[in-house]
Amino acid sequence: MTSHAVSDEALNIIFRDARTQNKWQNKPVSHAHLMAIYDLMRWGPTSANASPARIVFLASHAAKERLKPYLAPLNREKTMGASAVAILGMDLDFAQKLPHLFPNNPKMKDIFTANEELNRVTAFRNASLQGGYFIVAARALGLDCGPMSGFDNDGVDKEFFAGTNIKSNFVCAIGYGDPAGVFSRNPRLSFDEACEIL
Amino acid sequence: MTSHAVSDEALNIIFRDARTQNKWQNKPVSHAHLMAIYDLMRWGPTSANASPARIVFLASHAAKERLKPYLAPLNREKTMGASAVAILGMDLDFAQKLPHLFPNNPKMKDIFTANEELNRVTAFRNASLQGGYFIVAARALGLDCGPMSGFDNDGVDKEFFAGTNIKSNFVCAIGYGDPAGVFSRNPRLSFDEACEIL
Repeated sequence: MTSHAVSDEALNIIFRDARTQNKWQNKPVSHAHLMAIYDLMRWGPTSANASPARIVFLASHAAKERLKPYLAPLNREKTMGASAVAILGMDLDFAQKLPHLFPNNPKMKDIFTANEELNRVTAFRNASLQGGYFIVAARALGLDCGPMSGFDNDGVDKEFFAGTNIKSNFVCAIGYGDPAGVFSRNPRLSFDEACEIL
Repeated sequence: MTSHAVSDEALNIIFRDARTQNKWQNKPVSHAHLMAIYDLMRWGPTSANASPARIVFLASHAAKERLKPYLAPLNREKTMGASAVAILGMDLDFAQKLPHLFPNNPKMKDIFTANEELNRVTAFRNASLQGGYFIVAARALGLDCGPMSGFDNDGVDKEFFAGTNIKSNFVCAIGYGDPAGVFSRNPRLSFDEACEIL
């Protein structure tokens, strides 16, 4: 391999050995550590550098309690046990920041504000891409993740994003997992089931 | 940092120093290298392990020529110059594979087939998450990426996904970038612009 390749051990940490957590150690995650996740993930590419993801980190017990009633019942207990919980949202008003984020083309903002469907699809695709970067970044920083989409999106939006055009995308518990709570690993599709080379 | 953390150099490769490429070195990428991207990215988490992403790798000149007319004019030349191009799609029939991928709950398939909106949103969110894993995996394997969503989705679907329920999501050129084609880096949102801690 070239000197430019990431070590096999690092690939294990971010992909091969990383597991979704369902049970958590009682070990805090500092605010600085949460900020470090964003500081890495924000460099990942998005369409026209639009960067539509917005994140609310629930680090206090009181903040997590505000989320609890909106989680699917099966997700409640395990989520409350995590050191922190991130609500990953997408800002449907992301185009307002394009003059700053994409100065290369001052008209880019208008392309999105004039086309509601393109705006919505771009926000959803790119905020989800950024969700992938978020999970990888958290793992790369030594944290475990418990991502989930089983919750009441409208309720979460009213509770955490009132007065904005931010919509919740998914929720991700963060902390140090307890291996006792990890399920046996499910299979993945083989290359031939998911891909082809032409 | 703990022994569980990825090295700073690796973080530079997958996040901080990685740049979207617009010009490519004339240096081939082997089929085995393309397969290695999928072999890593497939371990990333998705809802109910649904793994809706499907990928067509265009590695031959003839295959890339089939894509060319559907690309936005500004994206054509730079894309044709890449060693390979991946079309990342989402399979709206992903639920058919859930009995294999998520044996824990045999009824999971029916939850998606009975709810078209949930099915569509789950496919789009999770195939895009997997798009994030794809880009990170390619970079971790020493490759450069040029992701783009400026193309005729319907045309690409007819050309490459006819007879299936797979819809194109985004396209990603792959190869070894020529630094001469990299634009100056645009800013990212600060933590306080994109996040808050409660």
